[in-house]
Amino acid sequence: MSAYDALMAHARETEALKQVLGRLGWDQETVMPSGAAPQRAEEMAALETVLHARKVDPRVSDWLAAAEPADAVAEAQLREIRREHLRATRVPADLAAAIARTTSLAQGIWAEARASDNFTAFAPTLSEVLSLRRREAEALADRGDLYDALLDDYEAGETAASLTAMFDAMRPRLVALREAVLEQGERVSRLDGHFDEAAQLRLATETARAFGYDFDHERIDKAVHPFSSGQGLDSRITTRTDPADPFNCLYSTIHEVGHGCYEQNVKRDFLLTPLGAGVSMGVHESQSRIYENQLGRSRAFTGWLHGRFREAFDGFGVEDPEHFYAIVNAVRPGYIRTEADEVQYNLHILMRFDLERALIGGDLEVADLEAAWNDRFADDFGLQVDRASNGVLQDVHWAVGLFGYFPTYTLGNVYAGCLFKALKQAVPEWEEALARGDATPATGWLREAVQQHGALMTPRAVIEGATGEPISVAPLLDYLEAKFGGLYGL
Amino acid sequence: MSAYDALMAHARETEALKQVLGRLGWDQETVMPSGAAPQRAEEMAALETVLHARKVDPRVSDWLAAAEPADAVAEAQLREIRREHLRATRVPADLAAAIARTTSLAQGIWAEARASDNFTAFAPTLSEVLSLRRREAEALADRGDLYDALLDDYEAGETAASLTAMFDAMRPRLVALREAVLEQGERVSRLDGHFDEAAQLRLATETARAFGYDFDHERIDKAVHPFSSGQGLDSRITTRTDPADPFNCLYSTIHEVGHGCYEQNVKRDFLLTPLGAGVSMGVHESQSRIYENQLGRSRAFTGWLHGRFREAFDGFGVEDPEHFYAIVNAVRPGYIRTEADEVQYNLHILMRFDLERALIGGDLEVADLEAAWNDRFADDFGLQVDRASNGVLQDVHWAVGLFGYFPTYTLGNVYAGCLFKALKQAVPEWEEALARGDATPATGWLREAVQQHGALMTPRAVIEGATGEPISVAPLLDYLEAKFGGLYGL
Repeated sequence: MSAYDALMAHARETEALKQVLGRLGWDQETVMPSGAAPQRAEEMAALETVLHARKVDPRVSDWLAAAEPADAVAEAQLREIRREHLRATRVPADLAAAIARTTSLAQGIWAEARASDNFTAFAPTLSEVLSLRRREAEALADRGDLYDALLDDYEAGETAASLTAMFDAMRPRLVALREAVLEQGERVSRLDGHFDEAAQLRLATETARAFGYDFDHERIDKAVHPFSSGQGLDSRITTRTDPADPFNCLYSTIHEVGHGCYEQNVKRDFLLTPLGAGVSMGVHESQSRIYENQLGRSRAFTGWLHGRFREAFDGFGVEDPEHFYAIVNAVRPGYIRTEADEVQYNLHILMRFDLERALIGGDLEVADLEAAWNDRFADDFGLQVDRASNGVLQDVHWAVGLFGYFPTYTLGNVYAGCLFKALKQAVPEWEEALARGDATPATGWLREAVQQHGALMTPRAVIEGATGEPISVAPLLDYLEAKFGGLYGL
Repeated sequence: MSAYDALMAHARETEALKQVLGRLGWDQETVMPSGAAPQRAEEMAALETVLHARKVDPRVSDWLAAAEPADAVAEAQLREIRREHLRATRVPADLAAAIARTTSLAQGIWAEARASDNFTAFAPTLSEVLSLRRREAEALADRGDLYDALLDDYEAGETAASLTAMFDAMRPRLVALREAVLEQGERVSRLDGHFDEAAQLRLATETARAFGYDFDHERIDKAVHPFSSGQGLDSRITTRTDPADPFNCLYSTIHEVGHGCYEQNVKRDFLLTPLGAGVSMGVHESQSRIYENQLGRSRAFTGWLHGRFREAFDGFGVEDPEHFYAIVNAVRPGYIRTEADEVQYNLHILMRFDLERALIGGDLEVADLEAAWNDRFADDFGLQVDRASNGVLQDVHWAVGLFGYFPTYTLGNVYAGCLFKALKQAVPEWEEALARGDATPATGWLREAVQQHGALMTPRAVIEGATGEPISVAPLLDYLEAKFGGLYGL
């Protein structure tokens, strides 16, 4: 057997074991009996140990040195295997174990602190997580930039500098749009009433199908938080229901369907190989966002959805589809990122990006983080944060050590803007089909242009290959200004 | 770290990984999207490879040689680890892989052959499975008896000779009882009507609680076949519903609850160690059978159940609880083992035991198996087998290589007989509580007497320790003669 074949056989087993680990996580969040948690922790730790040993296996190093790739696909496989091997070998095993243990505990401490709006109670834990992740970044960076080393895990090829340039170019137009819209005041009412949860789930399932979700390889379950999990022939999503807010269930479903479709539409040749998954968090988010926003919150789709709402929810009071479209896209002041509209969402991310770079760079102490957050929030959003759960404690990311992750959300929105521009040109019938509740002309184009490639190309190469143009923030900003300019009569 | 501690750390990780493999099996049978099967096969194969490598790891051999057990528990841990290590090292890896591959394919071929009642279509596959398992038995037996080597995997300590002696002692009284009962003719009607499936599942859940099933560590799902899966803090069961036959759901649930309770009631000190599971198939079956039959089909419990049936199933026609008890325990001629009553069940097993010993011993060719089955069935049951699905193709066991497994069913019934005799003396209130729908005085005794010990003692030592008496077939036969003598006025 050639070195390349031996390496790929090893990698296939590793990828299969990663799927198993993902399945355990899904099980824990959806169906696991509550008392099983301590045992599950042991099961996952045992599997993590097996996976780590495989990644740092010295044979991988030998195979990598000797492997001769026959084509571009083989080269890409080697690139991904080398990347993972390097990251795993650079981080000492005891540091990796300390990070796993500390972030696992930190999640519970963060949840308690958030429930009692007490950042001080969480600060020592956050300091420990930050310190461990900085040590990891030092090990990974090989004397390069620490933040870049962390970012690389989520978005290979991007750097703090590249993202800063992109975000600086967005900020003025985002701020101006936000101010212009909010000056118009509250133009639409909120939905009012009780929305049957079983009917919400039926409508979510119907909508998932409308977006091309393949239930032979997928399922939807209820969980506390919406998430997607798994790759290839078995990727699953979760959703949740709120009887007062059917949009929560519906749009989180469409969002996760975007992630799920990306995973299930990767070329089958790449199944259970390092290329068999979405290439980066940013490209992943581009799929979930374009499904959710550019398609799901469009006038065309909300027109169809309005009809389905009238059938599904007896006594649903909105008669006019234009009014329904305005309700779906209402822009209001608010503290919470995950509840933010398309206009304000990226401003939340830009703020977190700046704060987490300062933390990793040593320019901001954890003790000063809450004040820094509140000052910045007042500047960017014109609101005084009233409690920590509406401010610095609202997201779990930093508690579990995800520094360098937030910017991929906005990167995904930028990519979605580029893709939507190209999609409209390539598939002129997208809108007419969507008005009939059929997103598949649009999502079919995304499958061919983006999703099928998995991790074959770098993130930027995937997007530029799909659009035929350099990546730019302009399409996203143009789209937002046109859409919300129309909705708010600017 | 001492050799013993190093060995146990290794064993704990192995046990955790075995739980993961069990969880994948559960997932596949209950919730997995249908199209995911090929990927799941790869995932399970990868995990099997990891587990096999751990079992044959040469360090295990070294640790076993150097380990000094501090107490009886440590001795038992070493006994179980040694047993597994020896079995894994004796079977060549390519033979183990061939067995896994062949039996996996054989299951589908068997299902097709059964659907078309065509034993000839299945015979070549069965020959291959038999030949592979014989080779495995030769590797394991080290020049000893082949059947004993296979049996040892399911019931350590038993041999074909020990079981033959036991079964020969049962046969005359079982045959006599069966003939006497069937001479009485059809004494009770069958249930008639449509039984709401949701109500069946609610009643099954209520009954599971009544038997002490702990839903903090358990769950019940629907699947094609009832089974139990998992150990310790996370053991799960499945059930199924038939709108015409509520007893199918109810008694398969009680049966699996017996298996599930055994696993969840093992002493927590043994969690994720080789002692942390039920000790053998026979002892496992003793728990499921005593829950299902001696308790679940008793006059006391069926009295309570009759009341619940009248509440749960509108229009349920049986007014008299004595009549209901008789319906639950009706004895009728039939071909199918899994549908057999308590009187006839063991006769099905005795027949399979003789046939599979002849197959493994080389005294019966696969080509002659169907004829041998039909002849023997006519002798034992007085019925001509009308088609292969009612005969030699009814069970999946041989297709998946489970030679040596069948006798553990009857061994479990014998053990259940011994345990029930002891239980009645130790817990006089068992019957009065059961009449109120509370099985926990009885199942609590079983937890203390049997279940908590896990694999600490040998199977026979567990049962004899619980009953204080040598194992004997007499209590089971006495119980059957008394119960069915009463029901059929003998």
